[in-house]
Amino acid sequence: MANIDLDKSVTSVVKLLKQRNLTISTAESCTGGLLSEMITSVSGASEIFELGICTYSERIKHEFLGVPMEEIEKYGVVSEQVALSMVRGLKKRSGADICVSVTGIAGPSGGTPEQPVGTVYIGFDICGEQFVKLPKLWELEDRSRDNIRRCAADFAFKEIEKKITEAKQ
Amino acid sequence: MANIDLDKSVTSVVKLLKQRNLTISTAESCTGGLLSEMITSVSGASEIFELGICTYSERIKHEFLGVPMEEIEKYGVVSEQVALSMVRGLKKRSGADICVSVTGIAGPSGGTPEQPVGTVYIGFDICGEQFVKLPKLWELEDRSRDNIRRCAADFAFKEIEKKITEAKQ
Repeated sequence: MANIDLDKSVTSVVKLLKQRNLTISTAESCTGGLLSEMITSVSGASEIFELGICTYSERIKHEFLGVPMEEIEKYGVVSEQVALSMVRGLKKRSGADICVSVTGIAGPSGGTPEQPVGTVYIGFDICGEQFVKLPKLWELEDRSRDNIRRCAADFAFKEIEKKITEAKQ
Repeated sequence: MANIDLDKSVTSVVKLLKQRNLTISTAESCTGGLLSEMITSVSGASEIFELGICTYSERIKHEFLGVPMEEIEKYGVVSEQVALSMVRGLKKRSGADICVSVTGIAGPSGGTPEQPVGTVYIGFDICGEQFVKLPKLWELEDRSRDNIRRCAADFAFKEIEKKITEAKQ
């Protein structure tokens, strides 16, 4: 993950989504809109993208995506459970074929021994298949806020491309 | 506008918002999440930022921000009226002190003689004062999609900073 090319990843996934006639929607916390910004940086993205939500606070995660406050209290806002609830809420709100959610600690503050900077849960709904990934971004050499956010976005785009490519054509 | 420093503009406005204890929320179309991405690139942005929405389609502008479909049909989605309705809807949804909306044509396609690439309406609600600006981005030397988006974001951040600074302290 040392040398990511985010422009390449997003261009590639947008091209694939267009080919397959699939739409995508995003719900972001620590990436703050980077995924939607990257997707829409590709001309013609309106064919495959309608909605991105940056839900930066717990209140907004609850109000806009229906993440239960009890879940946030029990598991913490940076957790597999919340990433999954975010992507489920997004699926309901957007109806997109592909939904992706991001919740994590981009730093420089907010890290703990249990959840170091670079702990980022990424939730996916790929045409109905829901799952959460936890890339080991805390192992990055460059753990700057910017690099963690960019690597999280890159991971998300590559995962989506991989899953769609693997699926039946 | 030839040499913008978007990092500087956003860092400056986030610092000011923190000092004044003001919150900000964004509703973006052609900038696609760039404003929220820039705001949250500043560490500690969670103090002043809760919600950003990227409403890329007409349907989502209507559903999430309450922009009337008749208005979109009458004036076009890139218009002063829609920018204003977007920012009004955002104010209702977020309750933030500062709301900003963006709707425009970042190109490379979509431009017309009446609305060339670079036509970008930016709606503001600055502590209750609502208005729309149309920076002359079609006059930029570099009218690439990326530069138009970046210049639109830069204009928005500078306008917010100017208005807050001018207001009673």
